[in-house]
Amino acid sequence: MLENVKLIIEYDGTHYCGWQRQPNGRSIQQEIETALGRMTRRKITLIGSGRTDAGVHALGQAASFTCDTAIPPRAFQKGLNSLLPDDIVIRACTRVPPGFHARYDATGKRYRYTIRNQPLPAAIGRHYAWWVRTPLDVAAMASAATHLIGRRDFKAFEGAGSPRAHTIRHVTRAHVHSTSDGHIIIEVAADGFLRHMVRNIAGTLVAVGKGALAADRTPALLASRDRGLAPATAPAHGLCLVQVFYPENLAPGP
Amino acid sequence: MLENVKLIIEYDGTHYCGWQRQPNGRSIQQEIETALGRMTRRKITLIGSGRTDAGVHALGQAASFTCDTAIPPRAFQKGLNSLLPDDIVIRACTRVPPGFHARYDATGKRYRYTIRNQPLPAAIGRHYAWWVRTPLDVAAMASAATHLIGRRDFKAFEGAGSPRAHTIRHVTRAHVHSTSDGHIIIEVAADGFLRHMVRNIAGTLVAVGKGALAADRTPALLASRDRGLAPATAPAHGLCLVQVFYPENLAPGP
Repeated sequence: MLENVKLIIEYDGTHYCGWQRQPNGRSIQQEIETALGRMTRRKITLIGSGRTDAGVHALGQAASFTCDTAIPPRAFQKGLNSLLPDDIVIRACTRVPPGFHARYDATGKRYRYTIRNQPLPAAIGRHYAWWVRTPLDVAAMASAATHLIGRRDFKAFEGAGSPRAHTIRHVTRAHVHSTSDGHIIIEVAADGFLRHMVRNIAGTLVAVGKGALAADRTPALLASRDRGLAPATAPAHGLCLVQVFYPENLAPGP
Repeated sequence: MLENVKLIIEYDGTHYCGWQRQPNGRSIQQEIETALGRMTRRKITLIGSGRTDAGVHALGQAASFTCDTAIPPRAFQKGLNSLLPDDIVIRACTRVPPGFHARYDATGKRYRYTIRNQPLPAAIGRHYAWWVRTPLDVAAMASAATHLIGRRDFKAFEGAGSPRAHTIRHVTRAHVHSTSDGHIIIEVAADGFLRHMVRNIAGTLVAVGKGALAADRTPALLASRDRGLAPATAPAHGLCLVQVFYPENLAPGP
């Protein structure tokens, strides 16, 4: 019988070319497909909720695959975790309805971007935060972020290379806060994201934090629909895909 | 004029054979000595406060060296940080009195051992915590730790290979607490440490946390002076050297 299975995946993206299988370079998708192949002796194609760039991390990437084996979800999870390299961990494995599709059915995602805002870089944990030495004005960044919330055209925050016909996205959360250990966390949730959108938002908020851009310039930046006007893209390694949202009836939580 | 200089060093020990220079393998000491050599065009020997094992991290390792150059401490720090690989960061650089010696003058050290106590391992940050899946009794661990405080013979917690004539150490802090994100932190401070002493303490406290050893058995374990009776050594990657203590007049803070 054909089963449809959903995975929740944590990974450290440092040593990967990204989520998506590539002719050259190690990808998360390839590693999991290889492990699935070893477990099931079948060629399985894994459908991710979407790509992540090289160096981007995930705490809760979602993916699905169909397979005609009778391996129970718990056994799949244990087997995969024993076969996968230690920078990829299957956090959950559940059966989902036959029609479930990890990309098409995703109703939204939540990302976190971490900035280390201290005079010196970190050795420990350096792969998980962007080091910005200039002291940033967190209140200004938080203020600028509020202008991103709602249904807006994010064309000005779309990276080059894979333009979308529709660039309107509904941002439901855009929050900035600082931690007691000198980090600044940017959280963004939306019904969908354009290429590099979170990294472009992070780059813009850091420009605001540095005083290079006024917080209330964000609406004009959005209105311009011009990527050339927005500040530089923040580096990949500060970014983490925290969660992918699905309708509760399609993909009940583990 | 001969200057004596003290460094405070953070490092991610994952990719090193440890602090100490070795004929084969990359060491932290060697990396810094090489960078010092490039900056000063002299062969400089760095004196560490003590060794750390392969895979052990440091937030505040201390080391000192003498040099006849007139490079100001700030310039030394900046220069070293630009030359060193990104898993070693010089956190502070200060002039110290001529007689200062990073090993002989150390009056104590503080270590932190981190345990990830969750059903699944981590991908992100996996090099910085020991994964123990069995739920641990933190209160029992904390209770057992209190028996370590004071002047005691730690022979039962000394690793093989480099026995010390005197195995009495004064532990000034031995504290266990859990964090909101599922980690257990063991902090130990003492006037000195035997080889593998913190890792053996961590291994013993985890055995207590699992219920394999009663918390009040710690005094008998110490009294036995028998390494064979104490539980297995905890792995290196959970350990971090947080701080080295010196008399205030010898090594004023940065």
